Amino acid sequence: MNETDCLFCKMVAGKIPVAKIYEDQLVLAFLDISPVSDGHTLVIPREHIEKLHDCPHQLLSQLGSRLGRITKAVAAAMKSDGYNLLCNNGRAAGQLVEHLHFHIIPRNTGDGLFDRWPAYRYKEGKITEIAAKIRENL
Amino acid sequence: MNETDCLFCKMVAGKIPVAKIYEDQLVLAFLDISPVSDGHTLVIPREHIEKLHDCPHQLLSQLGSRLGRITKAVAAAMKSDGYNLLCNNGRAAGQLVEHLHFHIIPRNTGDGLFDRWPAYRYKEGKITEIAAKIRENL
Repeated sequence: MNETDCLFCKMVAGKIPVAKIYEDQLVLAFLDISPVSDGHTLVIPREHIEKLHDCPHQLLSQLGSRLGRITKAVAAAMKSDGYNLLCNNGRAAGQLVEHLHFHIIPRNTGDGLFDRWPAYRYKEGKITEIAAKIRENL
Repeated sequence: MNETDCLFCKMVAGKIPVAKIYEDQLVLAFLDISPVSDGHTLVIPREHIEKLHDCPHQLLSQLGSRLGRITKAVAAAMKSDGYNLLCNNGRAAGQLVEHLHFHIIPRNTGDGLFDRWPAYRYKEGKITEIAAKIRENL
């Protein structure tokens, strides 16, 4: 997907209206029109970057500091018991718009969202092997 | 939960062994011993901070830049089709250890993880009302 076809680039350019939460030179935050909970917010860089690991470190730093401020406001406004910050990368991970975005999802006790967490244990030795493989790729 | 009782503080202090991925003065990354997919990594600040919105902006910036580098290494090493970055804040949102942590979860097409996304639409006018409420809390 290129910038011309990108839904979020159109929002950044003002071609599609949004329920705006915050904006500055680098970042735009707005309500997801198809939320999983009231106050479900999306935070995006203005620049068309597809995935977290494609994002220049400086911009990621700047995104990080904005996310702190915006999550605080979302949680306070919605009086939620908690929230998830979620960034899906790649279609296999549920990324539908190929422009980096962070979901802030207000949560309340017993709301039943994302309650499946199919954790397991590694077979002996496997955790050490995987850690070594990841360290080699750093 | 205070620092003395905190599982992740004990890991930072070297009192509990971890399958280490990365560490520096501010951050520790290691494999979750109870993963939802192979290579499931946790990234934490060394400092005992409970939630994302409690985290000083400078530290969040620094975490942001590390997350870019670590997600890239996890995805490359695991040859995954994608990954989720997830930060649960508050027990209602699935936070079990009250020390800020980011999950990096490698994903593969059709793995069936987190496939429930119960989105809905706001009733007319509600999205504007909620956006205003959040902006007031910024």
